[in-house]
Amino acid sequence: MPYITVKLMEGRSSRRIKLLAAKMTEAVCETLEIKPSDVRIEFVELKAGTFAVAGQIVPEIKDSEGGSQHE
Amino acid sequence: MPYITVKLMEGRSSRRIKLLAAKMTEAVCETLEIKPSDVRIEFVELKAGTFAVAGQIVPEIKDSEGGSQHE
Amino acid sequence: MPYITVKLMEGRSSRRIKLLAAKMTEAVCETLEIKPSDVRIEFVELKAGTFAVAGQIVPEIKDSEGGSQHE
Amino acid sequence: MPYITVKLMEGRSSRRIKLLAAKMTEAVCETLEIKPSDVRIEFVELKAGTFAVAGQIVPEIKDSEGGSQHE
Amino acid sequence: MPYITVKLMEGRSSRRIKLLAAKMTEAVCETLEIKPSDVRIEFVELKAGTFAVAGQIVPEIKDSEGGSQHE
Amino acid sequence: MPYITVKLMEGRSSRRIKLLAAKMTEAVCETLEIKPSDVRIEFVELKAGTFAVAGQIVPEIKDSEGGSQHE
Repeated sequence: MPYITVKLMEGRSSRRIKLLAAKMTEAVCETLEIKPSDVRIEFVELKAGTFAVAGQIVPEIKDSEGGSQHE
Repeated sequence: MPYITVKLMEGRSSRRIKLLAAKMTEAVCETLEIKPSDVRIEFVELKAGTFAVAGQIVPEIKDSEGGSQHE
Repeated sequence: MPYITVKLMEGRSSRRIKLLAAKMTEAVCETLEIKPSDVRIEFVELKAGTFAVAGQIVPEIKDSEGGSQHE
Repeated sequence: MPYITVKLMEGRSSRRIKLLAAKMTEAVCETLEIKPSDVRIEFVELKAGTFAVAGQIVPEIKDSEGGSQHE
Repeated sequence: MPYITVKLMEGRSSRRIKLLAAKMTEAVCETLEIKPSDVRIEFVELKAGTFAVAGQIVPEIKDSEGGSQHE
Repeated sequence: MPYITVKLMEGRSSRRIKLLAAKMTEAVCETLEIKPSDVRIEFVELKAGTFAVAGQIVPEIKDSEGGSQHE
Protein backbone atom coordinates (compact mmCIF):
# COMPACT_ATOMS: atom_id res chain seq x y z
CA MET A 1 0.00 0.00 0.00
CA PRO A 2 -0.96 2.65 -0.81
CA TYR A 3 -2.86 1.59 -3.93
CA ILE A 4 -3.98 4.62 -5.92
CA THR A 5 -6.54 4.65 -8.75
CA VAL A 6 -6.65 7.70 -11.00
CA LYS A 7 -9.78 7.91 -13.16
CA LEU A 8 -9.48 10.50 -15.95
CA MET A 9 -10.96 11.11 -19.37
CA GLU A 10 -9.20 9.24 -22.19
CA GLY A 11 -6.96 11.38 -24.41
CA ARG A 12 -3.88 12.26 -22.37
CA SER A 13 -0.50 11.51 -23.95
CA SER A 14 1.54 8.61 -22.53
CA ARG A 15 4.30 11.16 -21.79
CA ARG A 16 1.90 12.97 -19.48
CA ILE A 17 0.72 9.75 -17.77
CA LYS A 18 4.37 8.77 -17.11
CA LEU A 19 5.06 12.20 -15.63
CA LEU A 20 1.91 11.94 -13.50
CA ALA A 21 3.04 8.54 -12.15
CA ALA A 22 6.40 9.98 -11.11
CA LYS A 23 5.05 13.25 -9.62
CA MET A 24 2.23 11.58 -7.66
CA THR A 25 4.57 8.90 -6.27
CA GLU A 26 6.97 11.65 -5.15
CA ALA A 27 4.16 13.58 -3.42
CA VAL A 28 2.87 10.44 -1.65
CA CYS A 29 6.31 9.25 -0.50
CA GLU A 30 7.24 12.68 0.83
CA THR A 31 3.96 13.06 2.75
CA LEU A 32 3.57 9.52 4.12
CA GLU A 33 7.33 8.99 4.53
CA ILE A 34 7.27 5.64 2.73
CA LYS A 35 9.41 4.00 0.02
CA PRO A 36 8.50 4.48 -3.70
CA SER A 37 8.27 0.69 -4.07
CA ASP A 38 5.28 0.74 -1.66
CA VAL A 39 3.29 2.95 -4.07
CA ARG A 40 1.13 1.46 -6.85
CA ILE A 41 -0.85 3.69 -9.22
CA GLU A 42 -3.49 2.49 -11.67
CA PHE A 43 -4.65 4.87 -14.43
CA VAL A 44 -8.22 4.26 -15.62
CA GLU A 45 -8.92 6.20 -18.83
CA LEU A 46 -12.66 6.70 -19.30
CA LYS A 47 -13.70 6.41 -22.94
CA ALA A 48 -15.80 9.16 -24.50
CA GLY A 49 -19.47 8.32 -24.00
CA THR A 50 -18.95 6.54 -20.68
CA PHE A 51 -18.98 9.46 -18.23
CA ALA A 52 -21.85 11.80 -17.38
CA VAL A 53 -22.10 15.00 -15.36
CA ALA A 54 -25.55 16.51 -14.58
CA GLY A 55 -27.16 13.69 -16.59
CA GLN A 56 -25.25 14.56 -19.77
CA ILE A 57 -22.58 12.38 -21.35
CA VAL A 58 -19.26 14.31 -21.34
CA PRO A 59 -17.67 14.82 -24.82
CA GLU A 60 -14.19 13.57 -25.76
CA ILE A 61 -11.10 15.55 -24.72
CA LYS A 62 -7.89 16.22 -26.70
CA ASP A 63 -4.56 16.40 -24.88
CA SER A 64 -3.15 19.53 -26.43
CA GLU A 65 0.03 18.89 -24.40
CA GLY A 66 -0.58 22.39 -23.24
CA GLY A 67 -4.22 23.54 -23.26
CA SER A 68 -6.39 22.71 -20.27
CA GLN A 69 -8.95 19.92 -20.57
CA HIS A 70 -12.70 20.16 -20.00
CA GLU A 71 -13.82 17.83 -17.17
CA MET B 1 -12.42 14.48 -13.36
CA PRO B 2 -9.91 13.27 -12.43
CA TYR B 3 -11.38 11.23 -9.58
CA ILE B 4 -8.60 9.73 -7.46
CA THR B 5 -9.00 6.96 -4.88
CA VAL B 6 -6.17 6.44 -2.39
CA LYS B 7 -6.35 3.14 -0.52
CA LEU B 8 -4.00 3.02 2.48
CA MET B 9 -3.80 1.22 5.79
CA GLU B 10 -5.78 2.88 8.60
CA GLY B 11 -3.68 4.75 11.17
CA ARG B 12 -2.44 7.93 9.48
CA SER B 13 -3.11 11.19 11.30
CA SER B 14 -5.72 13.58 9.83
CA ARG B 15 -2.92 16.17 9.54
CA ARG B 16 -1.10 13.83 7.19
CA ILE B 17 -4.23 13.05 5.13
CA LYS B 18 -4.88 16.79 4.71
CA LEU B 19 -1.29 17.34 3.58
CA LEU B 20 -1.59 14.42 1.17
CA ALA B 21 -4.77 15.90 -0.34
CA ALA B 22 -3.02 19.22 -0.98
CA LYS B 23 0.27 17.75 -2.31
CA MET B 24 -1.41 15.23 -4.64
CA THR B 25 -3.79 17.87 -6.02
CA GLU B 26 -0.80 20.13 -6.71
CA ALA B 27 1.07 17.33 -8.52
CA VAL B 28 -1.98 16.44 -10.63
CA CYS B 29 -2.83 20.03 -11.58
CA GLU B 30 0.77 20.79 -12.54
CA THR B 31 1.10 17.68 -14.70
CA LEU B 32 -2.35 17.66 -16.37
CA GLU B 33 -2.57 21.48 -16.50
CA ILE B 34 -6.07 21.52 -15.00
CA LYS B 35 -7.78 23.54 -12.26
CA PRO B 36 -7.70 22.32 -8.62
CA SER B 37 -11.51 22.35 -8.56
CA ASP B 38 -11.46 19.57 -11.19
CA VAL B 39 -9.61 17.23 -8.81
CA ARG B 40 -11.48 14.97 -6.36
CA ILE B 41 -9.62 12.64 -4.00
CA GLU B 42 -11.19 9.91 -1.89
CA PHE B 43 -9.13 8.35 0.94
CA VAL B 44 -10.10 4.78 1.77
CA GLU B 45 -8.51 3.66 5.04
CA LEU B 46 -8.30 -0.12 5.23
CA LYS B 47 -8.98 -1.43 8.72
CA ALA B 48 -6.53 -3.86 10.31
CA GLY B 49 -7.56 -7.40 9.42
CA THR B 50 -9.00 -6.47 6.03
CA PHE B 51 -5.89 -6.54 3.82
CA ALA B 52 -3.68 -9.49 2.93
CA VAL B 53 -0.34 -9.81 1.15
CA ALA B 54 0.98 -13.28 0.20
CA GLY B 55 -2.11 -14.83 1.83
CA GLN B 56 -1.37 -13.28 5.22
CA ILE B 57 -3.50 -10.57 6.86
CA VAL B 58 -1.35 -7.42 7.29
CA PRO B 59 -1.05 -6.17 10.90
CA GLU B 60 -2.13 -2.68 12.06
CA ILE B 61 0.14 0.33 11.45
CA LYS B 62 0.84 3.28 13.74
CA ASP B 63 1.42 6.77 12.28
CA SER B 64 4.46 7.81 14.23
CA GLU B 65 4.24 11.19 12.40
CA GLY B 66 7.80 10.47 11.49
CA GLY B 67 8.75 6.79 11.27
CA SER B 68 8.10 4.92 8.04
CA GLN B 69 5.10 2.58 7.91
CA HIS B 70 5.16 -1.13 7.05
CA GLU B 71 2.97 -1.86 3.98
CA MET C 1 -25.37 -7.21 -13.48
CA PRO C 2 -25.64 -4.31 -13.41
CA TYR C 3 -23.64 -3.70 -10.24
CA ILE C 4 -23.94 -0.08 -9.15
CA THR C 5 -21.77 1.69 -6.56
CA VAL C 6 -23.02 5.00 -5.15
CA LYS C 7 -20.35 6.98 -3.30
CA LEU C 8 -21.81 9.84 -1.26
CA MET C 9 -20.90 11.85 1.82
CA GLU C 10 -21.91 10.22 5.10
CA GLY C 11 -24.91 11.77 6.82
CA ARG C 12 -27.98 10.78 4.81
CA SER C 13 -30.86 9.16 6.72
CA SER C 14 -31.49 5.42 6.19
CA ARG C 15 -34.99 6.40 4.96
CA ARG C 16 -33.39 8.35 2.15
CA ILE C 17 -30.93 5.56 1.26
CA LYS C 18 -33.82 3.08 1.06
CA LEU C 19 -35.76 5.44 -1.20
CA LEU C 20 -32.67 5.93 -3.36
CA ALA C 21 -32.27 2.14 -3.74
CA ALA C 22 -35.87 1.79 -4.94
CA LYS C 23 -35.86 4.84 -7.27
CA MET C 24 -32.50 4.00 -8.90
CA THR C 25 -33.50 0.36 -9.44
CA GLU C 26 -36.73 1.53 -11.09
CA ALA C 27 -34.83 3.92 -13.39
CA VAL C 28 -32.31 1.23 -14.37
CA CYS C 29 -34.92 -1.49 -14.99
CA GLU C 30 -37.08 0.83 -17.11
CA THR C 31 -34.13 1.99 -19.24
CA LEU C 32 -32.28 -1.32 -19.67
CA GLU C 33 -35.49 -3.40 -19.73
CA ILE C 34 -34.16 -5.86 -17.15
CA LYS C 35 -35.60 -7.49 -14.01
CA PRO C 36 -35.18 -5.77 -10.59
CA SER C 37 -33.48 -8.92 -9.28
CA ASP C 38 -30.63 -8.28 -11.77
CA VAL C 39 -29.82 -4.93 -10.13
CA ARG C 40 -27.39 -4.67 -7.18
CA ILE C 41 -26.60 -1.32 -5.56
CA GLU C 42 -23.85 -0.69 -3.02
CA PHE C 43 -23.87 2.58 -1.03
CA VAL C 44 -20.45 3.76 0.09
CA GLU C 45 -20.75 6.57 2.64
CA LEU C 46 -17.57 8.63 2.79
CA LYS C 47 -16.70 9.71 6.31
CA ALA C 48 -15.97 13.37 7.02
CA GLY C 49 -12.24 13.96 6.55
CA THR C 50 -11.83 11.35 3.80
CA PHE C 51 -12.83 13.32 0.70
CA ALA C 52 -11.11 16.33 -0.86
CA VAL C 53 -12.06 18.73 -3.64
CA ALA C 54 -9.46 21.23 -4.96
CA GLY C 55 -6.97 19.90 -2.38
CA GLN C 56 -9.24 20.73 0.56
CA ILE C 57 -10.89 18.13 2.80
CA VAL C 58 -14.70 18.50 2.47
CA PRO C 59 -16.52 19.17 5.79
CA GLU C 60 -19.26 16.92 7.21
CA ILE C 61 -22.82 17.18 5.86
CA LYS C 62 -26.12 16.99 7.76
CA ASP C 63 -29.18 15.35 6.16
CA SER C 64 -31.80 17.89 7.00
CA GLU C 65 -34.36 15.54 5.33
CA GLY C 66 -35.15 18.59 3.30
CA GLY C 67 -32.27 21.02 2.77
CA SER C 68 -29.81 20.37 -0.05
CA GLN C 69 -26.36 19.07 0.85
CA HIS C 70 -23.03 20.70 0.00
CA GLU C 71 -20.80 18.41 -2.12
CA MET D 1 -20.60 13.87 -4.89
CA PRO D 2 -22.34 11.59 -5.37
CA TYR D 3 -20.02 9.63 -7.68
CA ILE D 4 -21.85 6.66 -9.20
CA THR D 5 -20.23 3.73 -11.02
CA VAL D 6 -22.50 1.51 -13.14
CA LYS D 7 -20.89 -1.80 -14.13
CA LEU D 8 -22.83 -3.61 -16.87
CA MET D 9 -22.13 -6.12 -19.61
CA GLU D 10 -20.82 -4.56 -22.83
CA GLY D 11 -23.33 -4.40 -25.68
CA ARG D 12 -25.84 -1.69 -24.78
CA SER D 13 -26.48 1.01 -27.41
CA SER D 14 -25.10 4.51 -26.73
CA ARG D 15 -28.71 5.75 -26.94
CA ARG D 16 -29.58 3.57 -23.99
CA ILE D 17 -26.50 4.64 -21.96
CA LYS D 18 -27.42 8.31 -22.54
CA LEU D 19 -30.99 7.65 -21.39
CA LEU D 20 -29.67 5.80 -18.34
CA ALA D 21 -27.44 8.76 -17.42
CA ALA D 22 -30.41 11.15 -17.56
CA LYS D 23 -32.90 8.88 -15.72
CA MET D 24 -30.47 7.92 -12.94
CA THR D 25 -29.44 11.55 -12.38
CA GLU D 26 -33.11 12.53 -12.13
CA ALA D 27 -33.81 9.76 -9.58
CA VAL D 28 -30.76 10.73 -7.48
CA CYS D 29 -31.49 14.48 -7.53
CA GLU D 30 -35.13 13.97 -6.59
CA THR D 31 -34.30 11.64 -3.70
CA LEU D 32 -31.24 13.41 -2.26
CA GLU D 33 -32.56 16.90 -3.12
CA ILE D 34 -29.29 17.95 -4.77
CA LYS D 35 -28.40 19.72 -8.02
CA PRO D 36 -27.79 17.68 -11.24
CA SER D 37 -24.31 19.22 -11.48
CA ASP D 38 -23.39 17.42 -8.23
CA VAL D 39 -24.01 14.02 -9.85
CA ARG D 40 -21.26 12.16 -11.75
CA ILE D 41 -21.91 8.75 -13.33
CA GLU D 42 -19.26 6.45 -14.78
CA PHE D 43 -20.36 3.54 -17.01
CA VAL D 44 -18.00 0.56 -16.95
CA GLU D 45 -18.84 -1.90 -19.75
CA LEU D 46 -17.50 -5.35 -18.97
CA LYS D 47 -16.16 -7.11 -22.05
CA ALA D 48 -17.35 -10.65 -22.84
CA GLY D 49 -15.00 -13.10 -21.15
CA THR D 50 -14.25 -10.84 -18.17
CA PHE D 51 -17.18 -11.59 -15.86
CA ALA D 52 -18.06 -14.87 -14.14
CA VAL D 53 -21.07 -16.04 -12.16
CA ALA D 54 -20.93 -19.39 -10.28
CA GLY D 55 -17.39 -19.92 -11.64
CA GLN D 56 -18.52 -19.70 -15.27
CA ILE D 57 -17.57 -16.87 -17.65
CA VAL D 58 -20.79 -15.08 -18.73
CA PRO D 59 -21.38 -15.02 -22.54
CA GLU D 60 -21.71 -11.80 -24.57
CA ILE D 61 -25.04 -9.94 -24.63
CA LYS D 62 -26.75 -8.19 -27.57
CA ASP D 63 -28.76 -4.98 -26.97
CA SER D 64 -31.88 -5.78 -28.92
CA GLU D 65 -33.11 -2.25 -28.06
CA GLY D 66 -36.07 -4.11 -26.75
CA GLY D 67 -35.49 -7.66 -25.51
CA SER D 68 -34.29 -8.19 -21.95
CA GLN D 69 -30.63 -9.08 -21.40
CA HIS D 70 -29.26 -12.14 -19.61
CA GLU D 71 -27.18 -11.12 -16.56
CA MET E 1 -0.46 -7.39 -9.20
CA PRO E 2 -2.91 -8.98 -9.06
CA TYR E 3 -4.88 -6.73 -6.74
CA ILE E 4 -8.08 -8.43 -5.60
CA THR E 5 -11.05 -6.76 -3.89
CA VAL E 6 -13.60 -8.99 -2.17
CA LYS E 7 -16.87 -7.23 -1.31
CA LEU E 8 -19.02 -9.24 1.10
CA MET E 9 -21.70 -8.57 3.68
CA GLU E 10 -20.36 -7.67 7.12
CA GLY E 11 -20.60 -10.41 9.74
CA ARG E 12 -18.01 -13.05 8.86
CA SER E 13 -15.59 -14.08 11.61
CA SER E 14 -11.96 -12.94 11.33
CA ARG E 15 -10.99 -16.62 11.34
CA ARG E 16 -12.97 -17.07 8.15
CA ILE E 17 -11.51 -13.95 6.50
CA LYS E 18 -7.97 -15.19 7.28
CA LEU E 19 -8.79 -18.59 5.78
CA LEU E 20 -10.28 -16.89 2.71
CA ALA E 21 -7.09 -14.81 2.23
CA ALA E 22 -4.94 -17.96 2.30
CA LYS E 23 -7.20 -20.12 0.08
CA MET E 24 -7.75 -17.40 -2.56
CA THR E 25 -4.03 -16.60 -2.72
CA GLU E 26 -3.29 -20.31 -3.21
CA ALA E 27 -5.87 -20.58 -6.04
CA VAL E 28 -4.52 -17.46 -7.77
CA CYS E 29 -0.84 -18.47 -7.49
CA GLU E 30 -1.52 -21.98 -8.78
CA THR E 31 -3.53 -20.73 -11.77
CA LEU E 32 -1.42 -17.71 -12.78
CA GLU E 33 1.87 -19.37 -11.77
CA ILE E 34 3.00 -16.34 -9.76
CA LYS E 35 4.56 -15.83 -6.31
CA PRO E 36 2.29 -15.34 -3.24
CA SER E 37 4.04 -12.02 -2.54
CA ASP E 38 2.59 -10.71 -5.83
CA VAL E 39 -0.97 -11.19 -4.56
CA ARG E 40 -2.80 -8.48 -2.59
CA ILE E 41 -6.36 -8.98 -1.34
CA GLU E 42 -8.60 -6.30 0.14
CA PHE E 43 -11.76 -7.35 2.02
CA VAL E 44 -14.55 -4.77 1.94
CA GLU E 45 -17.29 -5.65 4.44
CA LEU E 46 -20.57 -3.99 3.50
CA LYS E 47 -22.50 -2.78 6.54
CA ALA E 48 -26.16 -3.75 6.94
CA GLY E 49 -28.30 -1.11 5.26
CA THR E 50 -25.76 -0.27 2.54
CA PHE E 51 -26.49 -2.96 -0.06
CA ALA E 52 -29.66 -3.45 -2.12
CA VAL E 53 -30.86 -6.20 -4.44
CA ALA E 54 -34.01 -5.64 -6.55
CA GLY E 55 -34.42 -2.21 -4.96
CA GLN E 56 -34.60 -3.62 -1.42
CA ILE E 57 -31.93 -3.08 1.25
CA VAL E 58 -30.45 -6.50 2.21
CA PRO E 59 -30.75 -7.40 5.92
CA GLU E 60 -27.78 -8.16 8.20
CA ILE E 61 -26.13 -11.61 8.10
CA LYS E 62 -24.74 -13.68 11.00
CA ASP E 63 -21.66 -15.87 10.50
CA SER E 64 -22.84 -19.04 12.16
CA GLU E 65 -19.34 -20.48 11.43
CA GLY E 66 -21.30 -23.21 9.75
CA GLY E 67 -24.69 -22.20 8.32
CA SER E 68 -24.84 -20.65 4.86
CA GLN E 69 -25.34 -16.89 4.56
CA HIS E 70 -28.15 -15.13 2.66
CA GLU E 71 -26.78 -12.85 -0.10
CA MET F 1 -22.49 -11.24 -2.77
CA PRO F 2 -19.63 -11.70 -2.63
CA TYR F 3 -18.61 -9.51 -5.56
CA ILE F 4 -14.92 -10.01 -6.38
CA THR F 5 -12.80 -7.77 -8.63
CA VAL F 6 -9.47 -9.15 -9.86
CA LYS F 7 -7.15 -6.50 -11.32
CA LEU F 8 -4.23 -8.01 -13.23
CA MET F 9 -1.90 -7.00 -16.05
CA GLU F 10 -3.33 -7.61 -19.53
CA GLY F 11 -1.86 -10.59 -21.40
CA ARG F 12 -3.22 -13.72 -19.73
CA SER F 13 -4.85 -16.30 -22.00
CA SER F 14 -8.65 -16.68 -21.82
CA ARG F 15 -8.03 -20.32 -20.84
CA ARG F 16 -6.22 -19.11 -17.76
CA ILE F 17 -8.90 -16.53 -16.88
CA LYS F 18 -11.60 -19.25 -17.13
CA LEU F 19 -9.56 -21.53 -14.87
CA LEU F 20 -9.06 -18.67 -12.41
CA ALA F 21 -12.83 -18.00 -12.30
CA ALA F 22 -13.52 -21.65 -11.46
CA LYS F 23 -10.69 -22.07 -8.89
CA MET F 24 -11.43 -18.80 -7.06
CA THR F 25 -15.17 -19.56 -6.89
CA GLU F 26 -14.37 -22.99 -5.45
CA ALA F 27 -12.07 -21.48 -2.79
CA VAL F 28 -14.66 -18.83 -1.83
CA CYS F 29 -17.61 -21.28 -1.64
CA GLU F 30 -15.62 -23.76 0.45
CA THR F 31 -14.45 -21.10 2.92
CA LEU F 32 -17.65 -19.03 3.25
CA GLU F 33 -19.95 -22.06 2.85
CA ILE F 34 -22.08 -20.37 0.22
CA LYS F 35 -23.52 -21.42 -3.16
CA PRO F 36 -21.49 -20.84 -6.38
CA SER F 37 -24.39 -18.81 -7.79
CA ASP F 38 -23.78 -16.23 -5.01
CA VAL F 39 -20.24 -15.55 -6.31
CA ARG F 40 -19.55 -12.93 -9.02
CA ILE F 41 -16.04 -12.26 -10.28
CA GLU F 42 -14.99 -9.37 -12.51
CA PHE F 43 -11.58 -9.49 -14.22
CA VAL F 44 -10.07 -6.08 -14.95
CA GLU F 45 -7.08 -6.39 -17.28
CA LEU F 46 -4.80 -3.37 -16.98
CA LYS F 47 -3.36 -2.31 -20.32
CA ALA F 48 0.40 -1.79 -20.64
CA GLY F 49 1.20 1.80 -19.82
CA THR F 50 -1.60 2.20 -17.28
CA PHE F 51 0.00 0.80 -14.11
CA ALA F 52 2.98 2.16 -12.16
CA VAL F 53 5.07 0.82 -9.30
CA ALA F 54 7.62 3.10 -7.56
CA GLY F 55 6.70 5.89 -9.99
CA GLN F 56 7.61 3.81 -13.06
CA ILE F 57 5.09 2.54 -15.63
CA VAL F 58 5.17 -1.29 -15.61
CA PRO F 59 6.03 -2.90 -19.02
CA GLU F 60 3.70 -5.34 -20.84
CA ILE F 61 3.60 -9.01 -19.78
CA LYS F 62 3.36 -12.12 -21.99
CA ASP F 63 1.36 -15.15 -20.76
CA SER F 64 3.85 -17.85 -21.56
CA GLU F 65 1.23 -20.34 -20.28
CA GLY F 66 4.07 -21.42 -18.08
CA GLY F 67 6.65 -18.73 -17.22
CA SER F 68 6.02 -16.50 -14.21
CA GLN F 69 4.87 -12.91 -14.82
CA HIS F 70 6.67 -9.73 -13.70
CA GLU F 71 4.43 -7.54 -11.48
